[in-house]
Amino acid sequence: MFKSRLNQLIESKNSLLCVGLDADPDKIPSVFHQHDSPVVAFNAAIIEATSELAIAYKPNIAFYESRGIRGFKDLEETLLLIPKTCLTIADGKRGDIGNTSQMYAKAFYEHWNFDASTVAPYMGHDSLLPFFEYQEKLTFVLCLTSNNGSADFEEQRLANGKKLYEAVLEKVLAWNKAGNIGIVVGATKPEQLAEIRQKAPEIVILIPGIGAQGGSLEETIRYGTDKNQESAIVVSGRKIIYPDGKFTSIDEFQRAVNERAKATVLEMRQYLKTNL
Amino acid sequence: MFKSRLNQLIESKNSLLCVGLDADPDKIPSVFHQHDSPVVAFNAAIIEATSELAIAYKPNIAFYESRGIRGFKDLEETLLLIPKTCLTIADGKRGDIGNTSQMYAKAFYEHWNFDASTVAPYMGHDSLLPFFEYQEKLTFVLCLTSNNGSADFEEQRLANGKKLYEAVLEKVLAWNKAGNIGIVVGATKPEQLAEIRQKAPEIVILIPGIGAQGGSLEETIRYGTDKNQESAIVVSGRKIIYPDGKFTSIDEFQRAVNERAKATVLEMRQYLKTNL
Repeated sequence: MFKSRLNQLIESKNSLLCVGLDADPDKIPSVFHQHDSPVVAFNAAIIEATSELAIAYKPNIAFYESRGIRGFKDLEETLLLIPKTCLTIADGKRGDIGNTSQMYAKAFYEHWNFDASTVAPYMGHDSLLPFFEYQEKLTFVLCLTSNNGSADFEEQRLANGKKLYEAVLEKVLAWNKAGNIGIVVGATKPEQLAEIRQKAPEIVILIPGIGAQGGSLEETIRYGTDKNQESAIVVSGRKIIYPDGKFTSIDEFQRAVNERAKATVLEMRQYLKTNL
Repeated sequence: MFKSRLNQLIESKNSLLCVGLDADPDKIPSVFHQHDSPVVAFNAAIIEATSELAIAYKPNIAFYESRGIRGFKDLEETLLLIPKTCLTIADGKRGDIGNTSQMYAKAFYEHWNFDASTVAPYMGHDSLLPFFEYQEKLTFVLCLTSNNGSADFEEQRLANGKKLYEAVLEKVLAWNKAGNIGIVVGATKPEQLAEIRQKAPEIVILIPGIGAQGGSLEETIRYGTDKNQESAIVVSGRKIIYPDGKFTSIDEFQRAVNERAKATVLEMRQYLKTNL
């Protein structure tokens, strides 16, 4: 089960950190460009520099898909580099009619063998069911996202008084018989995160939005974790993988990445009950 | 502009048919399995047998993604086989925060150079804007889909009395300054299709759900087209690409596919004002 593995990792590493592997070739330091596959070399350096601190890695599929076959080759090679002591989350936000959604679920959970993935709820239960049927995997349903556009639909109030994202949460709680469904809630909305955690005390929450997007790490941990300060995954992408400065060697880049990750995890530990 | 090209094709071919290229290796007739790339050979046969009848082809990305790099190679080879007299629609239902959505838009509109694609609205405007910025392309926003799960969220009533899909339609109409945004409405909901067309007399509507999913072609054309009986794309997938029977040659398969496509287009022409 994903959730028990996750919480074991959170305990043993004393960390909630998930590193977003959103490798943009235009932003990768020049020191990697001499490699045949700059993206793979870049990801390899990041993984090596952070795998003791991170509980999970989350490649956003868009960053690979944008370069077609070459990008997917980079994704597959990257997945081989992630140690078993870290979980893998495919951030794809997929969702389609049943027979098609089954193909996406197969792509993420069989072909690439990710431990978890993200899905979009707009089309409803039957569009997500093929993902939920993989009981060992965890499927994160978008609930309340960190971007401004969340006001357009997610935060619209329904006739029954609830907001759309609250209706999504309710449905997810009803569907989650096997305990293999989680939700995505952005760190930029701490009040709503607190309310959601109260309504769903045991659910696994994937929380992007700290760092570049401005969410507070302290509030994220206080409001987002469960009663054991677990069952939450806090994503940091750009802030860790694109440290400032010019790097003349991969070693130097790795030290900067490791420092950023360590600073994030040390800050997390301040807000977690125990310190290693 | 996509819309003017579309309507020219509808006029010249007297057809609204878009063939869904959802090649499932498990369903491809055995006659294709001797080929190095059965999916490409299968798609090639379908395209050759239907390109004079169809105005567009819509590969659902899931069917290619499920097989990873091999699948994307098949997709790229398939795209090269589609003649310029047919439009290409990437059915991906993507949607993510801005910088990520930009990557998806780049994948579909630059890397693969599709003429159009589908996106999911849950995350709101900024998650779709990178797609809308490609003015020559058409981006179809999911509005009311053909599956049962549409009742879960799409058809939920909001506090202002409108249903969620109606709120999506309103936003799309407000965003559609450049005339390059369309919507997806399932053929299985003819009454709502008629209401939507009334509220959006000029928008391009992508309509899946006839054939295997049970939508009526007559109602789809009557309610889905604009005042010139244009600006609508009617998708048929499984019904055309998987004709019944065992095929001992590719020719035989192509004749069956051509018959299915021709029957669909002839039926369309009964409901369109002019017959060729």
